[in-house]
Amino acid sequence: MEAKSPLGAQSSIGPIDHYLADLHQRIAGVTDGEIATYIPELARADPETFGIAIATVDGRVYTVGDADHPFTIQSISKAFVYGYTLAEYGRDFVLSHIGVEPTGEAFNSIVLDEVHNRPYNPMVNAGAMAAAELIKGDTPEARIATMLGTMSKHAGRSLHIDESVLRSEQATGHRNRAIAYMMLNSGMIHSAPETILDIYFRQCSVRVSCTDLAVMAATLANDGVNPLTGETALDRDYIQDVLTVMNSCGMYNYAGQWSYEIGMPAKSGVAGGIIAVIPGQIGIGVFSPRLDAHGHSVRGVRVCAEISETFGLHVFRNHTNSGAVIRRELSGTVVRSKRVRSPQERSLLDDKGDLISVVEVQGGLFFGSTERLVRRVDAIAAEAEFIVLDLRRVHDADKAARRLLRDLLAWLRARDRHLVFAHLPDDGPLASLRDEMTADDDTAARVFDHRDQALEWCENQLIAEFDEGGDRTKFSLGQLDIFKGLDRDDLRVLEGLVRPMVFEPGQTIVREGDEANLFFVVARGTVTIQLRLDSENESERLVRVASMGPGVTFGEMALLDGGYRSADVVADERVVCYGFSVEQLREVGKTHPALFTTILGNMMRDFSERLRRANDEIRALEQ
Amino acid sequence: MEAKSPLGAQSSIGPIDHYLADLHQRIAGVTDGEIATYIPELARADPETFGIAIATVDGRVYTVGDADHPFTIQSISKAFVYGYTLAEYGRDFVLSHIGVEPTGEAFNSIVLDEVHNRPYNPMVNAGAMAAAELIKGDTPEARIATMLGTMSKHAGRSLHIDESVLRSEQATGHRNRAIAYMMLNSGMIHSAPETILDIYFRQCSVRVSCTDLAVMAATLANDGVNPLTGETALDRDYIQDVLTVMNSCGMYNYAGQWSYEIGMPAKSGVAGGIIAVIPGQIGIGVFSPRLDAHGHSVRGVRVCAEISETFGLHVFRNHTNSGAVIRRELSGTVVRSKRVRSPQERSLLDDKGDLISVVEVQGGLFFGSTERLVRRVDAIAAEAEFIVLDLRRVHDADKAARRLLRDLLAWLRARDRHLVFAHLPDDGPLASLRDEMTADDDTAARVFDHRDQALEWCENQLIAEFDEGGDRTKFSLGQLDIFKGLDRDDLRVLEGLVRPMVFEPGQTIVREGDEANLFFVVARGTVTIQLRLDSENESERLVRVASMGPGVTFGEMALLDGGYRSADVVADERVVCYGFSVEQLREVGKTHPALFTTILGNMMRDFSERLRRANDEIRALEQ
Repeated sequence: MEAKSPLGAQSSIGPIDHYLADLHQRIAGVTDGEIATYIPELARADPETFGIAIATVDGRVYTVGDADHPFTIQSISKAFVYGYTLAEYGRDFVLSHIGVEPTGEAFNSIVLDEVHNRPYNPMVNAGAMAAAELIKGDTPEARIATMLGTMSKHAGRSLHIDESVLRSEQATGHRNRAIAYMMLNSGMIHSAPETILDIYFRQCSVRVSCTDLAVMAATLANDGVNPLTGETALDRDYIQDVLTVMNSCGMYNYAGQWSYEIGMPAKSGVAGGIIAVIPGQIGIGVFSPRLDAHGHSVRGVRVCAEISETFGLHVFRNHTNSGAVIRRELSGTVVRSKRVRSPQERSLLDDKGDLISVVEVQGGLFFGSTERLVRRVDAIAAEAEFIVLDLRRVHDADKAARRLLRDLLAWLRARDRHLVFAHLPDDGPLASLRDEMTADDDTAARVFDHRDQALEWCENQLIAEFDEGGDRTKFSLGQLDIFKGLDRDDLRVLEGLVRPMVFEPGQTIVREGDEANLFFVVARGTVTIQLRLDSENESERLVRVASMGPGVTFGEMALLDGGYRSADVVADERVVCYGFSVEQLREVGKTHPALFTTILGNMMRDFSERLRRANDEIRALEQ
Repeated sequence: MEAKSPLGAQSSIGPIDHYLADLHQRIAGVTDGEIATYIPELARADPETFGIAIATVDGRVYTVGDADHPFTIQSISKAFVYGYTLAEYGRDFVLSHIGVEPTGEAFNSIVLDEVHNRPYNPMVNAGAMAAAELIKGDTPEARIATMLGTMSKHAGRSLHIDESVLRSEQATGHRNRAIAYMMLNSGMIHSAPETILDIYFRQCSVRVSCTDLAVMAATLANDGVNPLTGETALDRDYIQDVLTVMNSCGMYNYAGQWSYEIGMPAKSGVAGGIIAVIPGQIGIGVFSPRLDAHGHSVRGVRVCAEISETFGLHVFRNHTNSGAVIRRELSGTVVRSKRVRSPQERSLLDDKGDLISVVEVQGGLFFGSTERLVRRVDAIAAEAEFIVLDLRRVHDADKAARRLLRDLLAWLRARDRHLVFAHLPDDGPLASLRDEMTADDDTAARVFDHRDQALEWCENQLIAEFDEGGDRTKFSLGQLDIFKGLDRDDLRVLEGLVRPMVFEPGQTIVREGDEANLFFVVARGTVTIQLRLDSENESERLVRVASMGPGVTFGEMALLDGGYRSADVVADERVVCYGFSVEQLREVGKTHPALFTTILGNMMRDFSERLRRANDEIRALEQ
């Protein structure tokens, strides 16, 4: 691109940059409107300056034109100071001092809500001055620092006051003096008007670029967290209040039309800046100094209107999708824990696995989505006894979700159904859901870190409930799948080769990379197969691949060609195994070829069945 | 439950029913406010009547109390008649007749926007009468039928006029007559006031229950589609207009406070009804006749406030999650098409598979989510040559998404990258995205019905690009994996058993259920393995499991124990196979045991590798 390119330095050149460049070029042709002159210093602005910035809630900033050109924030500051007062004093106190009703009048009107003895709303000058009075600090300097600190947190950088604009405001702000005295007269403010006006003029004189404005707006769009710094600039509880007031009053007596056509909470400033907020998506900052009759930047309004129209960003354009809350449902007949089961257990789970249901939940849990989830789980519980909610893809759960899930838990418990949670962490946005689900010892839900553990627990419950196989720690070799079809003589040969071996808890039975010269049958206890990864993070270095209990064989690939172990096998508890020497078995193979072929055939059938199951699982997971 | 239960007959007793029953019981204790008396017939209402209904966008209706008690809709009708005028006349025409600016005045105020010569907005009586004038019909009866039809479509049942309330309105509506004559005087309406008043009084006298109101509100919440009937009551393009005006003007001079505390687009009626709309989630209908000073049902406001607070339903409480758009990314080294590849092809894809990237997209594609997707695909394209967008879980794509993806397509093409779409249907909400992506012959994206086809296409491109293996239709038996490790003598024995066989396109080579007495090596062409399902739907009866080309074996399980075929294998084109008789092979096994053991070992290794790959794929799919 040439130096004359309107694309800002921060941007790489993608589709959105091209869109913005084109938009900027077209709207730059609009020369309607007049620069504000009632503050003499503002009249010095270059009417052609024109910048656009869009910041996403994950911190990508797109800019075009004079995106770094400095100007004073003016009335846009009102939104951030109002947010500050809510966070410092709480909603009720602030509401008793400043209303939230639109006036239908201009920004500098002197109408006051005499019924409630408060200015109508914090976006008109009267309300903004009442808010400025609430800025805390022991000294005037401390209060200015508080005000600058609030705005700087939203912008993600230190903002400063434009002293020459400030002097100009101080010298000419007589209408605002009149409003302040009117409020003092009726007891809506209590400090000396000049004290309030000093901080109010200063908050209006804070110097920003439209890139700053976009980031400040994106901070509001991102639930109060600055997307560049990650710092919380405003508690998320108050975001809805600030956005509501911006939406109903931010554009003064043009608010209805703006809300209808553009539909983004917004605030304009008389120097030519506008911010607009699309919650959860982006913040927009535009600057161009020529104003319309309502005091809004002409190009700024045009830019916001085009962006809203082109990209469908109107707040009442519905993107909520309650129905997508269930990512998929999987039956326990298809998904299994990594626990390798004995043939009897496998067949029991084949038979009864549909009593376990895994529901993968996704997105945000709020009323609409959670109500659907609760309704669906209720229906599933007509058949299933264990319902695993896999929350791995849930990014948030609000109080509606917590309440509905708590009620569901109690509801299912009364019907002898088990609600089991997987991937419900004890920190982050889901922590309070976990607290809610485990608060009461008597009724607490089962909570597991991983779905595999949740599944294994449910399977174990089912096996305990239905298995009448008695003691599975005693069995003859002929009952093992791998020796199926061998005659009495063959088995007698094998029995001569068995070596009973005992391992203590935590002991490594087989080590990855070792030569493979034995294969094993578990006789008692369970073992875990795990992989060692080359990871920095110690807790990630061991990956549990599977666990197995009595009657299950492992290490049988050694029969084929010896080779090396591909994973560790560790005893979970005190474990008894039967070991077979591969070398001895292969020797036997030479004298009893049919025996060896039968064993290979059995292994093959087992592999084939496992492959079929794996392919079934892939098909299910691909849905 | 006993007959006295406040739970309506339609409800089953779940967590939400319990919540509503408790809410109803608590708010039933509130006896503030006065019944409207200016329409004498309304004064006859029983002040204790109290019903609540919530309808979800998928048609579940929760009710409690007097949810079926009939009353007149009154001013709530204004929202639906306004929607009708927008759909009939378009936004610009309606806007020129009726403004959208809140008045800050009561519902029956006689302030008119003299600057624009129109009533301020359609929610005050003046604006509603101007809207009523626009109801179409050749006769008064036809216009009434149009009006009733519009409201009935929203309610999902035929609504009727309460004649005694109508007579009472007609007899006493002098203030409305005054407003109408004021508007006629200034040219804001053009018909005889009595004609307009007649239809206006009738629309106010339509009899509904709060269950009806909930469904009407849910229709607005559901983009204009009635969730019970599936019928479109209002084109989705106008929903945002109706909701915006309800939000800014629906609660008159209490709108700011309502919007701040409750934050749902709403409309109240003087008979005691209120509707509230939570887009994408629910519609609420409440009825209780005692009114506050602003003319809103006291209990109705309390109910909406509690529901909003308890379940976090304020419109500026952000639930948008742009970040969840990417469900997961999968590399072509891990996910493969169902095409069974020869060893050479497999190793090429192991090596080059990461040039293919599959991106699973989910949820709604709107600006915020699509911008993230575009940014991520752009980053992936730095390495990958083929990017498959799997849209199976995308439920909608708006115009912002279409535009951004079209720009992305052009952008990637200029960099020699292939954007491939899977599961992009040519009907339903994604049809216009498909049109956009395939509009231009020169630059059209590749679009496949299934991901597997998209993957196979990408793999084939890669193989064509990198494979220098030459003609793979000629090979010796010793090159086949299954015969690896056999010596020259063994191979000579096998060559004596080979039967070359030719199959025509579409011919079945192996049929499910047949006795298995041959196993095959593909020498030329490709074959498809498919399952026959027991389905009503003919197109679902055949499921493609895999396809395979030269050098790949199939039917080898027959070697173990004969048995029966588990799937069909069909020739895709003219196919040459080498067939081996299982019986002959097993005979050879007796005389050459090492040969047979080697083949079984090779099969086992192949199965073991396929099982390992399948487990890798499961692990990847589980992420």
